[in-house]
Amino acid sequence: MINEKLPKIWYGGDYNPEQWDAEIWKEDERMFKLAGIDVATVNVFSWALNQPSEDTYDFAQLDETMDRLYKSGVYACLATSTGAHPAWMAKKYPDVLRVDYQGRKRKFGGRHNSCPNSPTYRKYSALLAGKLAERYKDHPGLVIWHISNEYGGYCYCDNCAEGFRNWLQERYGSLDRLNKAWNTRFWGHTFYDWDEIVPPNELSEEWGGNRTNFQGISIDYRRFMSHSMLECYKLEYAEIKKHTPNIPVTTNLMGFYPELNYFEWAKHMDIVSWDNYPSLDTPFSFTAMTHDLMRGLKSGDPFMLMEQTPSQQNWQAYNSLKRPGVMRLWSYQAVARGADTVMFFQLRRSIGACEKYHGAVIEHVGHEHTRVFRECAELGRELELLGGKLLDARTEAKVAIVYDWENRWAIELSSGPTVALNYVSEVHKYYDALFKMGVEVDMVSVEEDFSKYDIVIAPVMYMVKQGFAAKAERFTANGGTFVTTFFSGIVNENDLVTTGGYPGELRSLLGIWAEEIDALFPEHNNQIVLKQPWGGLKDSYECGLLCDLIHTEGAEVLAEYGSDFYKGMPVLTVNQYGKGRAYYVASSPDASFMAGFLKNLCEEKGIKGLAALPDGVEAARRVKGNAEYLFLLNHNSEASQVAIGEGGRTELLSGAVVSGSVTVPGKGVLILESERQ
Amino acid sequence: MINEKLPKIWYGGDYNPEQWDAEIWKEDERMFKLAGIDVATVNVFSWALNQPSEDTYDFAQLDETMDRLYKSGVYACLATSTGAHPAWMAKKYPDVLRVDYQGRKRKFGGRHNSCPNSPTYRKYSALLAGKLAERYKDHPGLVIWHISNEYGGYCYCDNCAEGFRNWLQERYGSLDRLNKAWNTRFWGHTFYDWDEIVPPNELSEEWGGNRTNFQGISIDYRRFMSHSMLECYKLEYAEIKKHTPNIPVTTNLMGFYPELNYFEWAKHMDIVSWDNYPSLDTPFSFTAMTHDLMRGLKSGDPFMLMEQTPSQQNWQAYNSLKRPGVMRLWSYQAVARGADTVMFFQLRRSIGACEKYHGAVIEHVGHEHTRVFRECAELGRELELLGGKLLDARTEAKVAIVYDWENRWAIELSSGPTVALNYVSEVHKYYDALFKMGVEVDMVSVEEDFSKYDIVIAPVMYMVKQGFAAKAERFTANGGTFVTTFFSGIVNENDLVTTGGYPGELRSLLGIWAEEIDALFPEHNNQIVLKQPWGGLKDSYECGLLCDLIHTEGAEVLAEYGSDFYKGMPVLTVNQYGKGRAYYVASSPDASFMAGFLKNLCEEKGIKGLAALPDGVEAARRVKGNAEYLFLLNHNSEASQVAIGEGGRTELLSGAVVSGSVTVPGKGVLILESERQ
Amino acid sequence: MINEKLPKIWYGGDYNPEQWDAEIWKEDERMFKLAGIDVATVNVFSWALNQPSEDTYDFAQLDETMDRLYKSGVYACLATSTGAHPAWMAKKYPDVLRVDYQGRKRKFGGRHNSCPNSPTYRKYSALLAGKLAERYKDHPGLVIWHISNEYGGYCYCDNCAEGFRNWLQERYGSLDRLNKAWNTRFWGHTFYDWDEIVPPNELSEEWGGNRTNFQGISIDYRRFMSHSMLECYKLEYAEIKKHTPNIPVTTNLMGFYPELNYFEWAKHMDIVSWDNYPSLDTPFSFTAMTHDLMRGLKSGDPFMLMEQTPSQQNWQAYNSLKRPGVMRLWSYQAVARGADTVMFFQLRRSIGACEKYHGAVIEHVGHEHTRVFRECAELGRELELLGGKLLDARTEAKVAIVYDWENRWAIELSSGPTVALNYVSEVHKYYDALFKMGVEVDMVSVEEDFSKYDIVIAPVMYMVKQGFAAKAERFTANGGTFVTTFFSGIVNENDLVTTGGYPGELRSLLGIWAEEIDALFPEHNNQIVLKQPWGGLKDSYECGLLCDLIHTEGAEVLAEYGSDFYKGMPVLTVNQYGKGRAYYVASSPDASFMAGFLKNLCEEKGIKGLAALPDGVEAARRVKGNAEYLFLLNHNSEASQVAIGEGGRTELLSGAVVSGSVTVPGKGVLILESERQ
Repeated sequence: MINEKLPKIWYGGDYNPEQWDAEIWKEDERMFKLAGIDVATVNVFSWALNQPSEDTYDFAQLDETMDRLYKSGVYACLATSTGAHPAWMAKKYPDVLRVDYQGRKRKFGGRHNSCPNSPTYRKYSALLAGKLAERYKDHPGLVIWHISNEYGGYCYCDNCAEGFRNWLQERYGSLDRLNKAWNTRFWGHTFYDWDEIVPPNELSEEWGGNRTNFQGISIDYRRFMSHSMLECYKLEYAEIKKHTPNIPVTTNLMGFYPELNYFEWAKHMDIVSWDNYPSLDTPFSFTAMTHDLMRGLKSGDPFMLMEQTPSQQNWQAYNSLKRPGVMRLWSYQAVARGADTVMFFQLRRSIGACEKYHGAVIEHVGHEHTRVFRECAELGRELELLGGKLLDARTEAKVAIVYDWENRWAIELSSGPTVALNYVSEVHKYYDALFKMGVEVDMVSVEEDFSKYDIVIAPVMYMVKQGFAAKAERFTANGGTFVTTFFSGIVNENDLVTTGGYPGELRSLLGIWAEEIDALFPEHNNQIVLKQPWGGLKDSYECGLLCDLIHTEGAEVLAEYGSDFYKGMPVLTVNQYGKGRAYYVASSPDASFMAGFLKNLCEEKGIKGLAALPDGVEAARRVKGNAEYLFLLNHNSEASQVAIGEGGRTELLSGAVVSGSVTVPGKGVLILESERQ
Repeated sequence: MINEKLPKIWYGGDYNPEQWDAEIWKEDERMFKLAGIDVATVNVFSWALNQPSEDTYDFAQLDETMDRLYKSGVYACLATSTGAHPAWMAKKYPDVLRVDYQGRKRKFGGRHNSCPNSPTYRKYSALLAGKLAERYKDHPGLVIWHISNEYGGYCYCDNCAEGFRNWLQERYGSLDRLNKAWNTRFWGHTFYDWDEIVPPNELSEEWGGNRTNFQGISIDYRRFMSHSMLECYKLEYAEIKKHTPNIPVTTNLMGFYPELNYFEWAKHMDIVSWDNYPSLDTPFSFTAMTHDLMRGLKSGDPFMLMEQTPSQQNWQAYNSLKRPGVMRLWSYQAVARGADTVMFFQLRRSIGACEKYHGAVIEHVGHEHTRVFRECAELGRELELLGGKLLDARTEAKVAIVYDWENRWAIELSSGPTVALNYVSEVHKYYDALFKMGVEVDMVSVEEDFSKYDIVIAPVMYMVKQGFAAKAERFTANGGTFVTTFFSGIVNENDLVTTGGYPGELRSLLGIWAEEIDALFPEHNNQIVLKQPWGGLKDSYECGLLCDLIHTEGAEVLAEYGSDFYKGMPVLTVNQYGKGRAYYVASSPDASFMAGFLKNLCEEKGIKGLAALPDGVEAARRVKGNAEYLFLLNHNSEASQVAIGEGGRTELLSGAVVSGSVTVPGKGVLILESERQ
Repeated sequence: MINEKLPKIWYGGDYNPEQWDAEIWKEDERMFKLAGIDVATVNVFSWALNQPSEDTYDFAQLDETMDRLYKSGVYACLATSTGAHPAWMAKKYPDVLRVDYQGRKRKFGGRHNSCPNSPTYRKYSALLAGKLAERYKDHPGLVIWHISNEYGGYCYCDNCAEGFRNWLQERYGSLDRLNKAWNTRFWGHTFYDWDEIVPPNELSEEWGGNRTNFQGISIDYRRFMSHSMLECYKLEYAEIKKHTPNIPVTTNLMGFYPELNYFEWAKHMDIVSWDNYPSLDTPFSFTAMTHDLMRGLKSGDPFMLMEQTPSQQNWQAYNSLKRPGVMRLWSYQAVARGADTVMFFQLRRSIGACEKYHGAVIEHVGHEHTRVFRECAELGRELELLGGKLLDARTEAKVAIVYDWENRWAIELSSGPTVALNYVSEVHKYYDALFKMGVEVDMVSVEEDFSKYDIVIAPVMYMVKQGFAAKAERFTANGGTFVTTFFSGIVNENDLVTTGGYPGELRSLLGIWAEEIDALFPEHNNQIVLKQPWGGLKDSYECGLLCDLIHTEGAEVLAEYGSDFYKGMPVLTVNQYGKGRAYYVASSPDASFMAGFLKNLCEEKGIKGLAALPDGVEAARRVKGNAEYLFLLNHNSEASQVAIGEGGRTELLSGAVVSGSVTVPGKGVLILESERQ
């Protein structure tokens, strides 16, 4: 449980009373009650208010807010406000301002604007966190700390350059080792002095965001930037823990956000929280995958849905309204996948600046007689009804999909073989097929303990870090099913190719050698032709993107290419390895192949979906003690029937006991409690 | 009349003898005569020639030009030359060089290149204007002053930053008021010192040209830049007026150019002039609308067509030739809509630099035996024939469409609800429907006196400035028909939302409340379904872009949405308000709805088109004393018939007296004089 | 012969032993032997290795490499390593770092990164070249010098600005002449002091890479940059020649690379070499044309294929594998068109940085059992078989196509008449039609001796330099057939229009006057309608892009426009001029017209194709002494039949004697030796 003061699914969101006059605060109180809101994230962007000048701190307004909220039954998720520095600080200490990717020193503006290696920023952000912790450590309303906000963006200033060199010295010890790791003999880039190293941006080694001359320095700079911001977070964390060692601390993450290695971050967070902003056209299985990734950051611990919009966003191209029922549906999707909170950005819509068209529980009209408020209030009532029942419940998946930020950086920075390779999309292809079968999946890091799983899938495992191959071998030898794909096993963690034949360190596990890698133009494709019938698979499927030209070295060939000069070469192989089996998918298949392929794999391991799911219906399960909670979420507009088998289950929101076939209303949700099976 | 020295429609254009040797000047004289040219715009880019160094002025060549032209019967539109500073000035006084949107200090190059807050530029531009005025004040050839050239572009240098702060201090008085107006509590941007404020560009609050974090500062910076350039203009204006108080002064504007608030500028111009450069694929109703806007800048006063090309442009992607007759047709389109001059850029084509492929009366071949010259000479003869008849004639429209530059800035800077909203296109939709009916329209500012009109249409009146709502109410209460649309009445002039329900200050006038605003993906649409037959309207039409979800608060519902979850909610309403009616169009309709809708509105007010127009034929009217002049312009390649009713009218160019049905030749023009009806 | 030490077609490529440990070097030796490799390009990016600090030089590794290679029968193409400066130099002497087009001072990174006017770069690059020459002048393995690598990119720093001013002073003598040449009276850009001139980039006169306000300064800056880099090359060349006057010197060019005027460069190169990187979708006639251009740089002298990939590239969007046989086919295409070497980038794939996915003879797997290696080894055997037979053989074409870099710059920089005009594409249209007929073509400069040719085609000869018109007239008067097109004869070498009527200096030769130039939108076109039957031409063809509106002034009209207002005006004319004929093609025709038109022209001059070619088959011929070598290259996947006439020819690779109809296998090559005909 996040905090025992509030033993239920938290319900609330970002609240900015400082933007409003006192008479509005009364209205807030009244409407929060109507909506069943019990937590408010406060002080997110109040640094300038908390510290109006270098030597002055002023918490009068925050005192008022904390007290007022508490008195009306609303707890505080208290932010440290360091997501944007004050204007006075930018003017007085320009070192807080970033130098951007184009090499330009920025001026005051925006948010997420501080250089993570600025001495000024580090000093004053930690100081503020400490002052807040000291002041509110005993406030009865305080339930969690929220450090900064949506960390992100990189800086390329001289302080970062200096920090980077120090970090490199620590990492490599000597320039010899660094030159080797970055292969600087290429293009004569040998460094003879640490000071010769400059950050890789458009003035030096990179261009276009993700294009680089030297993958080594570019991947290391991403590591360093993720590390630098994490250092800032940790400085604040330490200050807070001095005063409130028992109150949890988080910072809000952003799902598949590319710039930070969240697996590293999660190690230093008491609980993961994240901001969920799908668009009208985001596949709901992609949202589900993101929830599962956020849950995977701390090996399955429940997380917080820190932000979502009640109605619409402002920063998308076409900010369509969430259709009736969708906010509720997506809220339960989060809960079904591990969230113990449902929180919004924002409780009341601001009237000026760039987020004024971002939806809120209280719209500009200001009263409760809106569709959006009614839906929020209904959900508030339901969450009250659910109470603490679901808190701390966990997911127990037998299938894991490996996702790795550093692998992603390496793939995105790679020059060749194709610009069309999107790591996250390839991961999603596998996830989506399992999702549609109702098979539970954990999204895990390369460091995760694989022994919990029957199947581990590592799509495009391009970068194989130290120890990973041995671990995958151990897992397979012990009976596991391991799956990987084209463009895997190519490089080590410095992006240096493992010579001797692809897929490098994974070669003996997979029992194949990939001689060449063909990149297909978007209008071209090839075929996966099965050598013999396998489960319900058809004879042939389309594939494309990349085609590894592989030779078996012990692996059994399940399917061959159907055309081009490598027609007849293997495209799908399986290698018996100890008690387990290792599959290699040498190209990127279409969705229908993926469905059949993964169905066969699950059947081999006796893994079943949670239910036979009609199109558009999602299933997820949380377990706790002897109870299990089956969520059925209908993303269709019309009702759907789902067979849940015999044995009565209690639908938590209606109290009805159901069995056999249940009807899930359009955009509706069932939460079926039963004894653990 | 612009100047009594030349009591006819002026005919001429930009003339650059300084680019040519003296022997060419003789040819110019001969050919100007052949073409009927009687005015030349001179000295437009001659600052470096007029002032070869800081302390030297040299007007010898200009003296020669002025005298020579006058002797051959050509009057001078005398430019002050300050549209581009000399290279020596850029080198000696870098403060004249701008800092661009990307934050880069520019070097010498281009034109429209001076910082409007540069002390050097302000000093020397005013000085030059004064010297020119003093020198030529009594020159018999001088008929008008032309300050600078096509003002535009923004600067973000330190002088501008300083100027901006001063301007803000004047506007807001205190930082408290400024912080409130910009809602700086959002993202903790509170300013405690004026010096903390920096111009909003890619280094601070903006990106991508029209994307911003803070609409408040961004709109104010546009105001300030428009103001700063206007200040430069006014400094020159004042210098000129000291010497020639009775000679009119203008500067050439550019139609819907987004960066300057021309309504403010027009207040300081003796006559509006503008440069008209449609492309082959510009709808001719768009050009007509632009003329009407230019006429509207000074409430209907005749204006100057300062520039157009006789044949082709150089800076468009595909610079197609104006087809035979088109130059004449478009010239008369300008005259029909209020122009008292027809002028070209340029009289003789330059041979070097970027405009050498811009058309000219005298082509590179240098002689008069070209299609282009022949067409120019024919037009010259016709304008001679017309004499002063049309001068000072005015348009008397009963329909006004409101256009506002600051509203445009606010819409374009808005983050949400949709990137697809184009204010000018929405305005043009209404204009185009009226244009096709032959209904006369004035394009007016929000400050215009509405009492002249029967119908006032204010499409997407997003920003409602102080006093506008009361004025619209007064207009309607007195019997007018007021029309506005989705995304109107949302913010005040600081872009702060009017809380309490959209459309804010316009809510009681319209008798509706817009609860939500749905943004549609480009591939989606909705329908306008009429509740009962209305005029010749069909049952149903397509609409899209944005859909306001409105509730009537007294307004009558004329049509409802046809699909989606808001099917059945109002999409078109009318509210009886005093003696008048206020319409609200809650989505962006297709052209066929617009035609029928506006036809009904005009019929309600007894407004008729000038004629029943076949496709591709344009009608416009100017009136003067007891006479009226009906222009029929045929944009088709084939002849068209137009019924003009009985009662003989004299066609001015042929002298023929016509009635009943007249034939307008392909690309042809009729100017029909009659007694005012 | 490039060097008598190696009297055969050289076979090898780039070799970077410094990236590998010594044990790999042994493998290299073994595998080079297997592949028949006899030349290695070494030391290309070793500046940092050769000169680890300002005062230290270290050639130990290079000594080892040179000796080792020589001992195993591999000769050295020895590079000077100056294509990328060391990191220490960038830090110590920032003047070596460029300022980019955006005006930003760069930091260390990338390659081709040195300012060509940096005193430091010039000093140390020449010094290094001298040291290398001195050290290896007597090395028995040394066969050719390779200066720097793929020169390119521009710099805009203060040293370049200063150098530019000096270059301009030399070129123009006085500011008066410069002001005239650049037409600076336009927009008042008159310069009164040389120091007022700044390089044209995004801070001054240019934007978007090829958009400019002043063509004069922009073309001159391109000339100056090409000249500046050539100066760097010449400094190294001079140092080398001091020590090894008899060893040839080259630098690797890049085909149609736009930034350098290779015709000027070739004057200072002992032999031309270039890097050939077609994509899967590059037309093979385009590659052929590029080979012909490279051969044309030194008026037909054989050249070196310095780089190609054995399998795939890394920097294209989709790096498809070269299909089986294609590497061999494309290698022989180079030889067929004048190459005396077949060389790869690279011999062994690097394992780190951005080119690790660029193909190599030795792949990452490291052994010889790969498709790529097998194909390389087979080709190596064939080249051994061919021996020196083809060396120094030349091409004898009767048709020349003129290509000019400065003309290209002027066209690309032109503002108007259309953005769609692509000079190289227009040139390729003519080339492609002749290529498909098997007609031999030389790609020549405007300075080439035309008297060797029967037909000279100068497509879009926009810029007519001093002497060109007279030369074309002489050529035609003497019986030649001259062809040019729309948008020709417009400007002189300063991009100043030749007044008096287009096509300016070419007008009397062509016997026409182009009155206007219409630019067509992409979706529009016109027709070429023949006035009477001509050869096998149809009645009518499509044309587009630009349409000159021409009048005949003596020329015979062969075809007229088929539509628009200039229907019936000439679109194709021929002018009898002395003993010859001058054709003018007033628009851009489709491929079918081009084929028929050029067929007729060739027939008029009795020029025949090398063979009647089926689709996809290419023919080329080299002659030497009394022998001729006919190459038949089949780009199809299936075999094709080609009739080669009677009289036996020996196929060099098989030794078979063939006549009549021969079969060229799919992707196959025949080299048919016969007595010269």
